[in-house]
Amino acid sequence: MNKLEKLFDRIIGKVNISLRGFNFDAKEYLKYLQNYIPLRQLVKFYAFYGFIGHQPFNFHFSRSNLAGSYFLGNCMVDNAILYKSDIRGDELKSKGDTINYQDIYFTLDHDEKVRIQDSILIKTLVHNCSNDPANFELFLIKNAASAPYANIHGSLVEGCFLGPFATADLTRLHGCILGTYAYVQTGELWKENIGNGRILIRNDNNFEFSYRFSPRVLDRYIRFKIGQQPSGIFIDFIRKRKEAFQQIFDAVNLEPPPMVPKSSSLSRYAVVRPKTHIGENVLVSQRAYLENSFLGNGANAQENCYIINSRLKGDNVTAHGAKLVHARLAKNVFVGFNAFLRGTADCPLDIGTGSVVMPHTIIDLKQPVAVPANHLVWGYIQHPDDLKYNSLSLKKFAAVRLKKTIKTMKFSGNGAAFVQAFRHRIQHILEANGAYFDGKHNRGHAQQEQDISFNIIQPYMTGPRKGLFPTLDIQP
Amino acid sequence: MNKLEKLFDRIIGKVNISLRGFNFDAKEYLKYLQNYIPLRQLVKFYAFYGFIGHQPFNFHFSRSNLAGSYFLGNCMVDNAILYKSDIRGDELKSKGDTINYQDIYFTLDHDEKVRIQDSILIKTLVHNCSNDPANFELFLIKNAASAPYANIHGSLVEGCFLGPFATADLTRLHGCILGTYAYVQTGELWKENIGNGRILIRNDNNFEFSYRFSPRVLDRYIRFKIGQQPSGIFIDFIRKRKEAFQQIFDAVNLEPPPMVPKSSSLSRYAVVRPKTHIGENVLVSQRAYLENSFLGNGANAQENCYIINSRLKGDNVTAHGAKLVHARLAKNVFVGFNAFLRGTADCPLDIGTGSVVMPHTIIDLKQPVAVPANHLVWGYIQHPDDLKYNSLSLKKFAAVRLKKTIKTMKFSGNGAAFVQAFRHRIQHILEANGAYFDGKHNRGHAQQEQDISFNIIQPYMTGPRKGLFPTLDIQP
Repeated sequence: MNKLEKLFDRIIGKVNISLRGFNFDAKEYLKYLQNYIPLRQLVKFYAFYGFIGHQPFNFHFSRSNLAGSYFLGNCMVDNAILYKSDIRGDELKSKGDTINYQDIYFTLDHDEKVRIQDSILIKTLVHNCSNDPANFELFLIKNAASAPYANIHGSLVEGCFLGPFATADLTRLHGCILGTYAYVQTGELWKENIGNGRILIRNDNNFEFSYRFSPRVLDRYIRFKIGQQPSGIFIDFIRKRKEAFQQIFDAVNLEPPPMVPKSSSLSRYAVVRPKTHIGENVLVSQRAYLENSFLGNGANAQENCYIINSRLKGDNVTAHGAKLVHARLAKNVFVGFNAFLRGTADCPLDIGTGSVVMPHTIIDLKQPVAVPANHLVWGYIQHPDDLKYNSLSLKKFAAVRLKKTIKTMKFSGNGAAFVQAFRHRIQHILEANGAYFDGKHNRGHAQQEQDISFNIIQPYMTGPRKGLFPTLDIQP
Repeated sequence: MNKLEKLFDRIIGKVNISLRGFNFDAKEYLKYLQNYIPLRQLVKFYAFYGFIGHQPFNFHFSRSNLAGSYFLGNCMVDNAILYKSDIRGDELKSKGDTINYQDIYFTLDHDEKVRIQDSILIKTLVHNCSNDPANFELFLIKNAASAPYANIHGSLVEGCFLGPFATADLTRLHGCILGTYAYVQTGELWKENIGNGRILIRNDNNFEFSYRFSPRVLDRYIRFKIGQQPSGIFIDFIRKRKEAFQQIFDAVNLEPPPMVPKSSSLSRYAVVRPKTHIGENVLVSQRAYLENSFLGNGANAQENCYIINSRLKGDNVTAHGAKLVHARLAKNVFVGFNAFLRGTADCPLDIGTGSVVMPHTIIDLKQPVAVPANHLVWGYIQHPDDLKYNSLSLKKFAAVRLKKTIKTMKFSGNGAAFVQAFRHRIQHILEANGAYFDGKHNRGHAQQEQDISFNIIQPYMTGPRKGLFPTLDIQP
């Protein structure tokens, strides 16, 4: 057994200890990962990191395998296995920033860092900054394991297991399990098991939004059984487009397509197929897939998102892992994490101005559907009639004061606060991504990442360290 | 003026200070380099380094541009501009090694390192280990500048300028100029100007070998005038084959050609064109070019060498920068640094068993030429008759006791010691490269470099640091 295999077992042991008490055998799930990603896969793919002149960065990697993973900003990785994951430390807090946490003010002593220790992350996205009030300078992921297409977004994750397509969003997780396609945004969670297909948003005593996919529906889209690889429509969809990424990862330098305006940036690790139009102030991140689509001014396409035969009018957010097929989005439409929106040529999806598609929403059309402007959409939609039970105008939502239940969607608390929180966040995302750049002010990722440099690192190919990467420390 | 341009000027200043007193304007020559390699070239090319599980390595890079350069082993680079150079720290001395210098014994405290400071090296090869008895643990290149295709082989170089295709071989150089295509192997040189096309080998009081190309001949092959790029047949020859290297540098992973035996290694940064045969225990280094050639067992093809329409029977050394066209080499033929051996289909070159082609020899045939076995060859050869004045059997050479002059070749001292030194060195090179590997013992570079991993690093693309690389420290 070489060092990497020992590391795998060591991490399994740590996750198991953290999750003792649940009727859940983390080891069995992780064993699947071990079969799914044998040593030869972990040796096969290079890792890469990007840096930009005016942005702070520090990469430190030791005793880890980083096969196929990408790093940006401040990232420390020790004793970890990161397989085709994206660790974006480019929205971290900076030294001198002052944070207001419930009217207690903190000023940061040093730049925040993403630190990943004793963890196995598979095709997982890590982004944003920590919301841990005890550790504003540390975005920690420790003793954790995640299955493919999980998102860890501004979330401390300690001693947890995240299922496939699960999202931890602005939530400190200690000793938790997030089931398949589960989404949480609750501030903090201690030793909870969030079941498959559950969507849970909770803001202290202000509001709670909850939805749960029926197991019958969820199984068609994504299922994850002990001893098996994740499968279902989500996986088939991604697998079908896998090869297009192969060639862009095999070339060191690709000429950028000429169609990208100066105010926009298109990652050279994104797939762009004809005929795609990219407007001003557009960010297209690595591992995004664009085909025959129009991205209007201020639109963005984040990691693991697919935009196919679609039209985004402008100022649109397509969050990490969201998929759009035959969709026409008016201005300011937001599509949340891992949402799956699939129309067809005959049954397109229209979404009106300012509407919000909740994270982890599935819209898979049998008939044309048009979501009106300024609506909130959630759950599972196939027909126009489904909108009755899976959408509500933002105005009506904001008017909710105590409780609102629509089939499996349960909302309680202050609707206005809920709507306001979403609006505020969408504004922040557009700002951070550079949608409001005027040629001088309001620079964001779209403008900053044009001049990125990429470095490529590889593991040992033989010997006891086979699959581990050397110890690297990179600074400006 | 950005930081890189300031660095260029700073190095120019340091070289100029070191070379004060010579009627030689280093600044003028370096200005040519500045025009030849503008900032956009220094931003365009990635650098790369290789590492192997069982070999020690430590890379440290700071405040430098490394465009297109390659690193192996222990390499430290600070405040330097290395353009498409090869820094091979894989034959350095190790901690614990005991060195005998004129019967004084030293044991190394730590692993030797190549350290390059305040220097500009252009398409230069740095290899072997330092022969500086005052600093066995340091292979230092400081306040130095080199023009394209210079070799710095086991030579401390401090405050020097090396012209194009010049070679410093096992010689400590302080405040020296090596002219175009000059070669020195003299142990030490202080404040000397070695003229263009001069070959000088001196071993303390044992022997001295000296040769000088006529300026008329040299100018045809390589000339370097103030304000101009180097030009001539050498440059034309290389430029003609430049594009073949483009595609191998543009791809991250290339499948190795199937024809390479397990005991041999072929760098993925070498060009191999049909139909080329690679035998057992063969080393083909990065930036080697092979075309329609046969490399017998134990042959090697080092950096910047070209082997075209040629046949190497086995145990052949083709040293850094040597070129072979329509040449048939019997067993144990040695071809030294930057030798240019060009036959044609009608006028091939044959070299007999055990013969030694001196470094910086030009054989450019108008008629077929056959060098007999066990001969030493030097100088300039076009016709069979030229062998009279440019070769001597090793037996006769070994018999020289005081002096031997053949046209511009002057030898004095102990011929046997001279021949013995060459034989000893060729053996060492074959051993180090793995020519004698028997499947178990005598491993060398050919066997060790099969499992190499390459990492790729790039400079800042914009801002005040444009063209500089970030600070990197990489260890096992």
